[in-house]
Amino acid sequence: MFIPNLNISLPKWIHDFLSAEEIILPNIEDRMRLAVKLSELNITEKTGGPFGAAVFDDKGILIAPGVNLVESSQCSILHAEMVAIALAQKTLNRFDLSDGGKSKYELITTTEPCAMCYGAIPWSGVSRLVCGARDEDARAIGFDEGAKLKNWKEELQKRNIEVRCDCLREEAKSVLKKYSLIGGKIYNSGKYS
Amino acid sequence: MFIPNLNISLPKWIHDFLSAEEIILPNIEDRMRLAVKLSELNITEKTGGPFGAAVFDDKGILIAPGVNLVESSQCSILHAEMVAIALAQKTLNRFDLSDGGKSKYELITTTEPCAMCYGAIPWSGVSRLVCGARDEDARAIGFDEGAKLKNWKEELQKRNIEVRCDCLREEAKSVLKKYSLIGGKIYNSGKYS
Repeated sequence: MFIPNLNISLPKWIHDFLSAEEIILPNIEDRMRLAVKLSELNITEKTGGPFGAAVFDDKGILIAPGVNLVESSQCSILHAEMVAIALAQKTLNRFDLSDGGKSKYELITTTEPCAMCYGAIPWSGVSRLVCGARDEDARAIGFDEGAKLKNWKEELQKRNIEVRCDCLREEAKSVLKKYSLIGGKIYNSGKYS
Repeated sequence: MFIPNLNISLPKWIHDFLSAEEIILPNIEDRMRLAVKLSELNITEKTGGPFGAAVFDDKGILIAPGVNLVESSQCSILHAEMVAIALAQKTLNRFDLSDGGKSKYELITTTEPCAMCYGAIPWSGVSRLVCGARDEDARAIGFDEGAKLKNWKEELQKRNIEVRCDCLREEAKSVLKKYSLIGGKIYNSGKYS
């Protein structure tokens, strides 16, 4: 039988948008602002859903960006957070970003993680999660974010992952609303939608 | 800044192991037996953790296999289920395996999904999940499978995904034990292990 490979690559516009230089953003709102901009460009460039993410180190250096690539790659696991995590690990050449607890990395996401991305966070080795829009904001435009624990933040904190929510929530939410207004695809699996 | 691509490709031994012909396994235990064999070969070939998975259609035709590639790809999201889902979607060229509810696909996994893979299942478009070893069997050898809902099966069933557990549990579990005995890496993130 033939089994294909899967290549995860970011759309060309991201390479054009991000400068050739190292990007350093010491301020948390600036880091979120960059992720929100990526989420917005992702819908205007028609390369995926209204979600952006990024992994930064503890000096605010951007290690890897991520955008939702579900439709453009025809792959349901390619949420923005998963793309950012996978590309950051590829950049650093290790599956544990923390390098055995020696380093601190932050995952910025424009919307609270769905059940899948939530589960991916402890495996990734990030030490901090920063969220923009809330879970309910994504559900409000029709995405089934999955069945999540009520105490999800505590479960991350138990694993030494700091959680900060509502960082530029309104800005992040406005991209969700824009996506809904322009009739963007809500890519829940068809068998239950 | 330089952003790499990520290429997900199965180890060479899988291509050698699976015949060039279409694989049809109408019996559910035979489908699980194949996944367990993949999990075992994955550890003897030293290409990853002790987990195998596969997506089959409703005639028992193998669409895509998957094995855990976390260590060999240095990527924490590449659990066996994620690899099988992504490659099945690539094979069929659609992010919703169900094709809007018209088709039925099954995900076989040698161990109950961790929190991440659990969250990935509703997005994927599979209609049935079949598990071998239990969550507690993976935790028993040291893997932190994440924080999961107690009623996870019901939440999948609500989304029209049938769940069958304990299919060849002992066979699947024996691969986990073998991995532990040979000192296989337990790839929890180092920051909390």
